[in-house]
Amino acid sequence: MTLRLYDLAGADPNRRFSPYCWRIRLALAHKRLAIETIPWRFTEKAEIAPSGSKTVPVLVDGDRWIADSWTIANYLEDAYPDSPSLFGGAAARRLTRHYSSLADALVTTIFPFIALDILQRVADKDRDYFRVSREQRVGKTLEAFVANRDAGLAGFRASLAPLRTTLKTQPFFGGDEPLYADYALFGQFQWARCISPFALLEEGDPVKLWRDRLLDCFDGLARKAVAYDV
Amino acid sequence: MTLRLYDLAGADPNRRFSPYCWRIRLALAHKRLAIETIPWRFTEKAEIAPSGSKTVPVLVDGDRWIADSWTIANYLEDAYPDSPSLFGGAAARRLTRHYSSLADALVTTIFPFIALDILQRVADKDRDYFRVSREQRVGKTLEAFVANRDAGLAGFRASLAPLRTTLKTQPFFGGDEPLYADYALFGQFQWARCISPFALLEEGDPVKLWRDRLLDCFDGLARKAVAYDV
Repeated sequence: MTLRLYDLAGADPNRRFSPYCWRIRLALAHKRLAIETIPWRFTEKAEIAPSGSKTVPVLVDGDRWIADSWTIANYLEDAYPDSPSLFGGAAARRLTRHYSSLADALVTTIFPFIALDILQRVADKDRDYFRVSREQRVGKTLEAFVANRDAGLAGFRASLAPLRTTLKTQPFFGGDEPLYADYALFGQFQWARCISPFALLEEGDPVKLWRDRLLDCFDGLARKAVAYDV
Repeated sequence: MTLRLYDLAGADPNRRFSPYCWRIRLALAHKRLAIETIPWRFTEKAEIAPSGSKTVPVLVDGDRWIADSWTIANYLEDAYPDSPSLFGGAAARRLTRHYSSLADALVTTIFPFIALDILQRVADKDRDYFRVSREQRVGKTLEAFVANRDAGLAGFRASLAPLRTTLKTQPFFGGDEPLYADYALFGQFQWARCISPFALLEEGDPVKLWRDRLLDCFDGLARKAVAYDV
């Protein structure tokens, strides 16, 4: 039976740009699970109401609706124990929880660079929703919010120092092969490149080299997505 | 056979304040290994020369000298496989590497709050070394470096948000019980309270509650240390 995933899309239904959905797209590929993605827009709350959530990812497995990326990852691990493990064991699963927190924090630190690029690429019916909800959140217009992004780039790149330290010693956070910890962190960098031509990462940065390795995983699943070459 | 650990001490030989040594003190307790700590001062490079390192922790196990906290943790896990696992398995060990990176980054973010307090508590023979080496590193006098620490406190506490997110869902980064991931992060908070009366953490903060749980581990090993009640 094919699983279904509600997946945030832009005006172009093939532009899939949710950082949280990308975590799950790669988790599903890791689990070798067949998946049908359903393009979903911010304002289509009714479509995913059976999940109890107003945001994606939402996974539908038979009559089960599951929302929230961390909850979905745990569901997949438990429901498909014969597929490759997403976490690498019981202790590893608990240690992975913090990677999800770190990934969520990255959403906040990357948003000031790409907020206006998102607005320009969401579906027409989502534009007002996105602008109003995000401007309320950040307390200014999106134009003002991103105006000084060039000045903030060096600080953002410096903030990735701990990632860099680890990636100088091993190719993935999970070791020689990626685990959900990698997919959680990767989701944000894939979000950025799917929605914005802004070059967040510097050439040669170990973080970019790691990101590029993940682009190549699963027969280039993430690299083949509609995205910018940054 | 009792292991020996060279452990950074202040003017008071019982004041043990290295963040990296505290990681290993708790790792040794987790492994249920008997340990003799040897008070060591910054300038006693000759004492630990057989390790090839100029800094502690340095562990001596028979005729083996091992330096660097991450290297020591891995050594203990491999050399004492019948003791409780520090990592929780092979994947968990690789996932723990990044906790060590996050812990190292915390050294940098905490140092501006306690740098002068350290100077005031190091052994007399270490004072010039500490001042000169650290002032070269930060590019100003230690007095100037800490002068605005009150203004930086809110930002520091905000930077702990990802830790807080995780600790609202589970008592330790390792899950229901602490693992090396916890000890790595804890070392920095123990460093601060062993050397400085400055209240880094707010009452009620989940990060402080987690720190306090670690103070109680192993029959209060860390709580019994010479430290300030902050």
